[in-house]
Amino acid sequence: MPDGLSQTFAALADPTRRAILAQLARGDANVSDLAQPFMSDMSLPAVTKHLKVLERAGLVRKTRAAQWRTCSLNPQPLKDATDWIEEYRRMWEASLDRLGDYLQELQAAQPLASEPGESERPPPTKSKTERQGKRHAGKAQ
Amino acid sequence: MPDGLSQTFAALADPTRRAILAQLARGDANVSDLAQPFMSDMSLPAVTKHLKVLERAGLVRKTRAAQWRTCSLNPQPLKDATDWIEEYRRMWEASLDRLGDYLQELQAAQPLASEPGESERPPPTKSKTERQGKRHAGKAQ
Repeated sequence: MPDGLSQTFAALADPTRRAILAQLARGDANVSDLAQPFMSDMSLPAVTKHLKVLERAGLVRKTRAAQWRTCSLNPQPLKDATDWIEEYRRMWEASLDRLGDYLQELQAAQPLASEPGESERPPPTKSKTERQGKRHAGKAQ
Repeated sequence: MPDGLSQTFAALADPTRRAILAQLARGDANVSDLAQPFMSDMSLPAVTKHLKVLERAGLVRKTRAAQWRTCSLNPQPLKDATDWIEEYRRMWEASLDRLGDYLQELQAAQPLASEPGESERPPPTKSKTERQGKRHAGKAQ
């Protein structure tokens, strides 16, 4: 039995399942509404199988009222997944910042001689602020 | 050939591969350093296989200098993964907010009669601010 995070990531590793979650993010839906966009490419049992994977991972909840079954999104596993990723992205960025600081210290301690014909030395590392600015520019990164 | 996001999520769906990424988030490492924490539970070829999955997904880059191979983390696929998740989490939260607003409007338009023996009616929905406060409390949610 895989751990919760592994189940969440495995459930997200399929475009049909991600499309189902995207649909549920807009609001609850019943199984046939959810299956409708995929019916030209796959059978209802195939869509139901994807839904079961999402349910087992705790990403989708089914409730039954009279003869109707409604599916809804459970965002907690998604939050756990982004929390995991973001923790290590932040750690990686902090380690890059430390490396940048170290290179700047090295440079300050031992200034390099200018190359012949070079009037100015290009900056060998970006400042922490520059990197952070770029990092927060999102997709443009 | 699965799409990029599916490859990223599939690569993240394993605790050994997540542990390798966590180690690389602290700084670059060579293959034997990366394998070392797992050697009591698995063989070097097994660890190498996990590393290959991470490389194929573009999460790990290998560089070679002389006889040394260094592995480093590539954070861009991780960013794409959190961007995808966060887009739908935000959409889901916006749809919850709309539902809450609608229920409050309904309640304002048609005040319910108190049940016999009930002195005060319990609040039927949480306010947008309350939900947001809870949502931002992280793990405690």
